[in-house]
Amino acid sequence: MKHAAHDTLTIPVANDADNRLDHFIEQDGVHFAGTHLIVDLWEADRLDEIDHIEETFKQCIEEAGATLLHMHFHHFTPNGGVSGVAVLAESHISIHTWPECGYAALDIFMCGDAKPHKAVPILKRAFNSGRVQLGDHKRGMIG
Amino acid sequence: MKHAAHDTLTIPVANDADNRLDHFIEQDGVHFAGTHLIVDLWEADRLDEIDHIEETFKQCIEEAGATLLHMHFHHFTPNGGVSGVAVLAESHISIHTWPECGYAALDIFMCGDAKPHKAVPILKRAFNSGRVQLGDHKRGMIG
Repeated sequence: MKHAAHDTLTIPVANDADNRLDHFIEQDGVHFAGTHLIVDLWEADRLDEIDHIEETFKQCIEEAGATLLHMHFHHFTPNGGVSGVAVLAESHISIHTWPECGYAALDIFMCGDAKPHKAVPILKRAFNSGRVQLGDHKRGMIG
Repeated sequence: MKHAAHDTLTIPVANDADNRLDHFIEQDGVHFAGTHLIVDLWEADRLDEIDHIEETFKQCIEEAGATLLHMHFHHFTPNGGVSGVAVLAESHISIHTWPECGYAALDIFMCGDAKPHKAVPILKRAFNSGRVQLGDHKRGMIG
């Protein structure tokens, strides 16, 4: 069976984050571990371009104020779909794409002081998505 | 700054999954891309043991009938927390642990014919969790 040029791609990243940056958060009197966004992109394109997805992840991470530790992408054949994850000092981002449906399922989990919502307009723009669905979960709520 | 022995650990996995296994699902007349479980473990232990987490991931993947493509773990200092991801042919599993709180935040996203719910009792048992919270999202619903 034929593999795409970028069948798998692992990007090692210099470790400058010895101490985790995902301490529990206090917001309006509620303490929780972090915010987990569930992001669905519809009517989207460029969903089979690993380089573009990688670059978009880096923009999201920078804009959110997060710290990249490790990235890995896998290119599926024959439909060109991509699965990818970025492990962050503040948790992770993932993407799974179905180019033939114009659909991508992402999640963005960030703890500490990072701002995960800032990634959403970057994703919408990068993939020219006509419709975005967003779910927002506070993880690890301790009252 | 001091690193733990397993500061980062990437496990390359033989690629026997050329074609993605995450085709859209039909269930009770609804079509969707996959099931995304949000799993919170409380009153849990062994949350700082990468080898144990890796072994537990493998059990979950096997029991769910999924296919492992890539795993990566990161060990934080000084609290011993772990962040880890497994990229699957059917999407991914992630874990982020706070051993000092007895808390772990996981998500299990599986498409196609895999059975992600089967992983939940394995996780509960592996980490001796006194309390489990489970959220279940159908991703990519197209009616």
